Amino acid sequence: MEIFVLRLGHRPARDKRISTHVALTSRAFGAKGIFFSTKDVDLEESVRDVAGRFGEGFEIRTGVKWKPFLRDFQGTKVHLTMYGVHVDDAIPRIRSEAKGRMLVVVGAEKVPAEVYQLADFNVAVGNQPHSEVAALAVFLDRLTQGEGLRSEFEGRLKVLPCERGKRVVDRGNAG
Amino acid sequence: MEIFVLRLGHRPARDKRISTHVALTSRAFGAKGIFFSTKDVDLEESVRDVAGRFGEGFEIRTGVKWKPFLRDFQGTKVHLTMYGVHVDDAIPRIRSEAKGRMLVVVGAEKVPAEVYQLADFNVAVGNQPHSEVAALAVFLDRLTQGEGLRSEFEGRLKVLPCERGKRVVDRGNAG
Repeated sequence: MEIFVLRLGHRPARDKRISTHVALTSRAFGAKGIFFSTKDVDLEESVRDVAGRFGEGFEIRTGVKWKPFLRDFQGTKVHLTMYGVHVDDAIPRIRSEAKGRMLVVVGAEKVPAEVYQLADFNVAVGNQPHSEVAALAVFLDRLTQGEGLRSEFEGRLKVLPCERGKRVVDRGNAG
Repeated sequence: MEIFVLRLGHRPARDKRISTHVALTSRAFGAKGIFFSTKDVDLEESVRDVAGRFGEGFEIRTGVKWKPFLRDFQGTKVHLTMYGVHVDDAIPRIRSEAKGRMLVVVGAEKVPAEVYQLADFNVAVGNQPHSEVAALAVFLDRLTQGEGLRSEFEGRLKVLPCERGKRVVDRGNAG
C-alpha cells in the first residue's frame, strides 16, 4: 500500500508548526508524500531539511489545488474527522476494501462539506476534539499494524535506540 | 492504570497550538490530567473550555516545578524521546512493570539531560523526528490497547459517529 497525505486549510502564519508536525508524522509513519492546499515554501524547506539529514524518499508539495486533486486521486480516500465512523469500526472495512494507493485527508479547523462527500471513508480517531497530528499518527499506526513506524530510512544521521541519553551516528563523518 | 502527562519546555508565544494539541490528545486518549512547567493561563482556559463542552474529569495545571514533580511522582515514569528504546520493544516491558499510576513526559525541542535519568523508561515512538503529539497519541493508544480512545465523556456536546457529515447532540438544548 502506498500512502499519501493531503493537508487542507494550512495558514502559513498560524499553522507552520502543526503542519510541520503533520508532514514529519506522515513521513515517520511510512507515508510516501504530503500535499498542501496552500503554498508555503518555508514549510517545504523545513521538511526537506529533515529528510535531507535523516533520509530521503518523502515527497512534499505545497500549493496544490485540493478539489481536483482529491476528486481525481486514484485510490482509496480516507478523511480523518472527529465526526466520522470510529476508527475501531472503520479500519477493518478500510483494510478489506482499500487497493494499492491511499490518500489520507486531514483538515485544519474548518473543512469544506465536499470533502466528506469526496472521501470513501470519513474516519474518527475517537469522537472527541484533539489533534490532526494525533489522529493521523494513530490512523497510520493502526492501518499498517505498526509497520509504518518500522520504515527504514537511509540518511546521513541515524538514531540508535538506547535506554538513557542519545546515540546518533553521523555517516557524513564516517567516510 | 491512572495516566498523567508532564509537558516540558512550553513557550506560550510559540507553542500554544502544539501544547493545546498535547493536552487535548492526553484527554482524548484517557489520561487524567496534564501538567506544564510554564505558567500559561490562556492555555489552561482553552483546554478547560473544550472539557467544559465535551466532558469534564480532566485536570490541567500550568507553572509546575517540573524537577521535584517528576522526581517525587509516585508511579512509573515514561519519557517519550526519539532517542529512546523503540516502542515495539518498550511496551511489553512497561506493561509488565508499571503499577497503578504513570507519568508520561513529553518535551519540546530541548529536554534537560536529567529527564533521561529520572525516567524509568525512555521510549521512542520510532527513531525518526516527527511530533510529540503523534508520539504521545501512539504511545497511549498502544499502552491502553485502544481502550484510552474508547473513554466515555459526559459533556453537553456529544458527537455521534456517522459516515458523512456531522451529527452532534447538544444536551444543553435537550432538557
